[in-house]
Amino acid sequence: MPQANGDVWSPVITPFNADLAPHTKRFVSHCQWLHSNGVGLAIFGTNSEANSMSVVEKQALLKALVDGGVDPARVMPGTGACSIDDCVALTQDAVTLGCAGVLMLPPFYYKGVSDEGLFRYFSQVINRIDDSRLRIYLYHIPPVTQVPLSFDLIERLREAFPGIIAGIKDSGGDWAHTQALVERFASDDFAVYAGSERFLLDTLRAGGAGCISATANVNPSAIIDVAQHWQQDDPDERQRRLNVIRDLFEKYPLIPAMKAATAHFSGITDWQRVRPPLVELDDQKASELITLLHEAGFNMEGLDEAKHG
Amino acid sequence: MPQANGDVWSPVITPFNADLAPHTKRFVSHCQWLHSNGVGLAIFGTNSEANSMSVVEKQALLKALVDGGVDPARVMPGTGACSIDDCVALTQDAVTLGCAGVLMLPPFYYKGVSDEGLFRYFSQVINRIDDSRLRIYLYHIPPVTQVPLSFDLIERLREAFPGIIAGIKDSGGDWAHTQALVERFASDDFAVYAGSERFLLDTLRAGGAGCISATANVNPSAIIDVAQHWQQDDPDERQRRLNVIRDLFEKYPLIPAMKAATAHFSGITDWQRVRPPLVELDDQKASELITLLHEAGFNMEGLDEAKHG
Repeated sequence: MPQANGDVWSPVITPFNADLAPHTKRFVSHCQWLHSNGVGLAIFGTNSEANSMSVVEKQALLKALVDGGVDPARVMPGTGACSIDDCVALTQDAVTLGCAGVLMLPPFYYKGVSDEGLFRYFSQVINRIDDSRLRIYLYHIPPVTQVPLSFDLIERLREAFPGIIAGIKDSGGDWAHTQALVERFASDDFAVYAGSERFLLDTLRAGGAGCISATANVNPSAIIDVAQHWQQDDPDERQRRLNVIRDLFEKYPLIPAMKAATAHFSGITDWQRVRPPLVELDDQKASELITLLHEAGFNMEGLDEAKHG
Repeated sequence: MPQANGDVWSPVITPFNADLAPHTKRFVSHCQWLHSNGVGLAIFGTNSEANSMSVVEKQALLKALVDGGVDPARVMPGTGACSIDDCVALTQDAVTLGCAGVLMLPPFYYKGVSDEGLFRYFSQVINRIDDSRLRIYLYHIPPVTQVPLSFDLIERLREAFPGIIAGIKDSGGDWAHTQALVERFASDDFAVYAGSERFLLDTLRAGGAGCISATANVNPSAIIDVAQHWQQDDPDERQRRLNVIRDLFEKYPLIPAMKAATAHFSGITDWQRVRPPLVELDDQKASELITLLHEAGFNMEGLDEAKHG
C-alpha cells in the first residue's frame, strides 16, 4: 500500500584532505547541510568511497557525526564488507549509537557464491551483534558487487530474522526488478528503496518507501519534495525535472561529478578530491558540468553558509 | 630466457575454528608442511579466504608464521585491499618482517576504473611504504576482481618503480594472456607466474618464473618437481599427471575441495570449515572426491606427521 510520504537518503560523499585522510569537520558540515534539507544520511555507501576507507576511519567519522549533534535516527551507515569482523565492528557501533539501521552489502570478493553462503554470512553478522535494535537494509548493487541478492535469499533472511531484516536498496538500475521487489516484499516492516531518484515516483506509486540516491548529495531539497508530496502538484513534471538534473550528472563519472559540483557551489576546491582508484574530473569536464548546471538553473542553496569546514 | 629452475608458491588455505577465527597453530603447521615440500608460502591469497579476514587477523597470522621459524624469504603475503590503509598496514608488516614480497590485488570494489586510477592506488601504497626492500607482485585475477591489470599499467608501474614492481601472477585462466605477459615483461627482475600449474611447463618454456597455484596446497611435491626439473625426465608426461589431479579438484568448488582433501589426509575434520560466503562440500561430494583421489593414487604424504595442531 503506497505511503503518504516517501523518504530519501543520501549516500554521503566523503571529503578528503591532501593526504587522503577524511576531513572530519567538512564531512559533519555536509551531513548537517543534507540533514537540514530533509534527507537521511546513508553514510559509507558506494558514493561515499566507503570501501576505500578502513573500518577505523569509518568508526571515527560515525562517532564524530553523532557527537556533532546529528540525530542518529536519520543516520544509516553502510557496514557491509568482505570481512565478517569488519562488518560486525562497524554495525555494532551503529547499533550502540542508535542509528536508524545499517545498509549492508554482501561480501563482494568471490563471485558466483550461493544463496546458502550469503545466508550464512548475514546470519553470522546478525548472531554476533545479537541485538533486537539491529535493522538491516540489504544492499543490492550487482553492477558493482557482481553479487546479486536473490528473492529466495531475501525471503529466507526475513523469515529467519523478522524485524531485523528491515528493507532493501535496489541499485541494479532496472525498474522491473525494483517493481518486482516492491510487489513481493514491500510492507510496513520492509522498506524498498530505489537506488536512484529516477525511479522515485514509480517506487512510491507502487508502494515502495522512497530512494537512497547518489544525487541526493547535490539535489536534496527537490528530491525530498517529490518524495513527501508525490500525490500533489503535478508530480510527473517534478519527477521529470529531477531526471534532467540526474542526466547532467550522469554525463560524467558520478562521484567525481558530484564532488566537482560540491566544490563549485561551496567554494571549497578540495571537495574535488577522490581516492584512488577513482580520478577527479579534469578542469575542462568540471567546467562543462558547472556550465550545464548553471544553464539548468541548478544550485546547492545554503551550501556556502554551512561553511563546510 | 628460460631459467633452469622454476619456482612454485602456494596460496595457503586457512584453517578456521568453530567460531571462524583462524586456527593459528594449524596454519603454521600447514605452512611448515608446504615449506618442507619446497613450495613458497603465498599466504592470504584468494584460496586463503583472505578477504574474509580482517587486517588484524592477517597481521597476527603473519607474525605467528615468522615467529614459528618459517623463512620469511619464502613468504609472500597477499596484501591488496579496497582500502589503501589496510593494504599499507599489512604490506608494511611484510617488509618489516623480511618477506620475499607481497602479492597485491588492485582495489576491487569499483568496476570499470581507469589505468590512471589504478596507477594512483599502487603509487600511494608504494610511496607510503617508502622502502627499497618492497617487492610487489601484481595480482591479475579478473574472473574474481573484475578489475584487470592492463599491459600499459604494468609498463607504467615498472617504469615509475623499477625494482619495486617485481612480477605478476596471472590468474585469468587464459594461456594466451600469460604467454603475452611473459613475452613482453619476463626478465631477471620481473617474474611472471602462471595462476595454475596447468600452465606450468608452458610458462617455464616461454621464460616465465613458475606458478602460484591453489592446488600447490595439496599436491606440492609433484608440482615443484616439474618446476625444478622441467628440462629432464619427460616433463610433458609429468605435466599431464599434474593436470589429472587438478582436474579432479576442479570437479568441485576448489577451496572447499582442497579443504576436504586436507581434512581427509590429515585426519582433522575441522579442516573442512570455510568462511561464508563459501560453503564446505557436503558429505557426499567430499566422499566422491576422496574416492577419486584414492583411485588416482593421490595422497598428501607426511601431512599427518606434521600434526597440524
